[in-house]
Amino acid sequence: MNNINSLPTPCLLLDRAVLESNCRLMAERMTKLGVRLRPHMKTAKSANVARLATAGHFGGITVSTLREAHYFAERGFTDILYAVGFVPSKIGEASTLQEMGVEIILLTDSMKAAAETAIQAAAMGHKFPMMIEIDTGDGRCGLDPVSEAGDIVNLGRVIHKSAALELRGVLTHAGQSYHGASVEAIKAIAEDERAGIVAAADLLRGAGLPCPVVSAGSTPTARYAENLDGVTEMRPGVYMFGDVDQALIGSCTYDHIAVTVLASVIGHNRRTKKIVTDAGGLALSKDIGPAEFDPDTGYGTVTGKGGKPRADRLYVAAVSQEHGQLALPGGAEPPWDEFPVGGRVRILPNHVCMTAAAHNSYRVIGEAGKITEKWDRVNGW
Amino acid sequence: MNNINSLPTPCLLLDRAVLESNCRLMAERMTKLGVRLRPHMKTAKSANVARLATAGHFGGITVSTLREAHYFAERGFTDILYAVGFVPSKIGEASTLQEMGVEIILLTDSMKAAAETAIQAAAMGHKFPMMIEIDTGDGRCGLDPVSEAGDIVNLGRVIHKSAALELRGVLTHAGQSYHGASVEAIKAIAEDERAGIVAAADLLRGAGLPCPVVSAGSTPTARYAENLDGVTEMRPGVYMFGDVDQALIGSCTYDHIAVTVLASVIGHNRRTKKIVTDAGGLALSKDIGPAEFDPDTGYGTVTGKGGKPRADRLYVAAVSQEHGQLALPGGAEPPWDEFPVGGRVRILPNHVCMTAAAHNSYRVIGEAGKITEKWDRVNGW
Repeated sequence: MNNINSLPTPCLLLDRAVLESNCRLMAERMTKLGVRLRPHMKTAKSANVARLATAGHFGGITVSTLREAHYFAERGFTDILYAVGFVPSKIGEASTLQEMGVEIILLTDSMKAAAETAIQAAAMGHKFPMMIEIDTGDGRCGLDPVSEAGDIVNLGRVIHKSAALELRGVLTHAGQSYHGASVEAIKAIAEDERAGIVAAADLLRGAGLPCPVVSAGSTPTARYAENLDGVTEMRPGVYMFGDVDQALIGSCTYDHIAVTVLASVIGHNRRTKKIVTDAGGLALSKDIGPAEFDPDTGYGTVTGKGGKPRADRLYVAAVSQEHGQLALPGGAEPPWDEFPVGGRVRILPNHVCMTAAAHNSYRVIGEAGKITEKWDRVNGW
Repeated sequence: MNNINSLPTPCLLLDRAVLESNCRLMAERMTKLGVRLRPHMKTAKSANVARLATAGHFGGITVSTLREAHYFAERGFTDILYAVGFVPSKIGEASTLQEMGVEIILLTDSMKAAAETAIQAAAMGHKFPMMIEIDTGDGRCGLDPVSEAGDIVNLGRVIHKSAALELRGVLTHAGQSYHGASVEAIKAIAEDERAGIVAAADLLRGAGLPCPVVSAGSTPTARYAENLDGVTEMRPGVYMFGDVDQALIGSCTYDHIAVTVLASVIGHNRRTKKIVTDAGGLALSKDIGPAEFDPDTGYGTVTGKGGKPRADRLYVAAVSQEHGQLALPGGAEPPWDEFPVGGRVRILPNHVCMTAAAHNSYRVIGEAGKITEKWDRVNGW
């Protein structure tokens, strides 16, 4: 089919061989550690990717929106965890999923949300599995297994008592691992995540409540956890693609980043020493997370040989909606001749979950660097 | 139709009365200043909004992608300026638009892009109007009317000489106005923009070249320019909706922001003093532009009475992909009871061009605060 140079720009490229390798390594790692892999599809939002990511495991997936759940349900996925705190106003969408034959698992850290969901589910004649969200250091959502131990047990009792809910277990996400400054730091966070979620499970079991599922995971902790005793499933997501953020914390290597943004060079600004492209803040996102670790990452990194950053570290120094401005660190004269106006450039995403979300599809790079397929994505809500 | 409380979240709300007022005021202002309004549709990306924005003017619009151009062409718009530097690889899309009956106007600041576009257009039997991009202080794209005066004339000659191109004029965008710290600063930038683009037009005319169109404009400069002598058209865009960025530079008032993100409260984190919602980095964008002017703007501002920020300045202090965390400046205890779990909250966007782009539609608020319509948007490329 298409050669990369004939694709419209900006667009999202997905290297199939790298994706497959990333998926296989994580699946094998989880098997070796004795846990089920329930990959988080919030990054890829693609059924083709989900089929690769679930290979060798039980087929369950995690989603971040009910629209994702619906998309995957229509494509044959039947075991779906919606890993964002549920509120009763979404009961209609959850019921529709159940009527489509999906086991849709809900999440909460709120007594009010659980109690009201139970009432509404009962009124609609539905029964939903529900998990309790636990905080193991991220500080975003979830109950603390030490200071809020009583709340965890009380919430477990309310869920277990309800005829319209089934207490499925406990869930945590060690989001703080994205800020782990070294592999050793990530290993320590992985152990905090494991110990914390197992402690929460023990609280429920100690109170005579069921807790069949103990769910944890982020890409960095899934990549570096040395021991997952007591955990039953892991939910990494970004590992399928990788990005500059993950590379900088050691959670992937640059040559294992599967997704890049393809852009056209649309101008040379000789006065400001910037190469201008048509991939701006929308095509790349305005996520500047990697600046925590490297000030010269801007809005994305230009690829050189083998998908790695170039030796001169050309990067996206500035963006506006549809313009990106490539510069060298320190503002040196950029390599104009390597990037003529009308030429192409590939950009490694800072945070691929954000970057991919602006695009409706992936152009899949197969054998010999040719574009072999176009895969869809489900965006929005 | 729907009440706001029955809408799925997160979603984009558009207040029709505010939109209409914003469009009318700008259209009247441009008429009074003696210029044509060619509204930039990169913010709204909606035909319904474009019809309101072009009312009282000639019907021409500006777009930021060729996909937008195609969408508007299919909906009856026939005079479309693609205001991003053109490269020859996009000639197929431009030709399709022309075959649909659209006058698609191209832009360049590159001799190479112009010359190659001329060759390809000729080969395809097409002729395109083309404008020269001029830099009047923004520093992103365009030739400088003083230091690159010779380049401007040379580029004009190449375009004018080509049988497949027609020299339509000069264009600038004073993007630096978004950083204007006061109305006086914006007025000065508006005059720089005017004087610079008129100087570029004079260069072409002085060399015996045609320059029928002299195009300028950003929302701040269109809002505050006192004199547009020599300018023939203005291209503001974000004024239709407004946002926190524009409010902080005085380019709109908070009660004239037409677009908000509707979110559900999904949790109360008592330990971190954060109210958690389902509008995260995707639904709001990660644009933190307003932090230049106010450190407590985070990723969005919660609305109070009349669409203005609340007296306590509750704002989106942190986001992850599908989670937003509301906090008070200084970390005081938030007003839990006003925002119960399961309740709704409306958030003013930092930079509405970025925020709106994650959403596929607008829920339009009409009479008596009821949702009366759903308007589509065209995203992607």
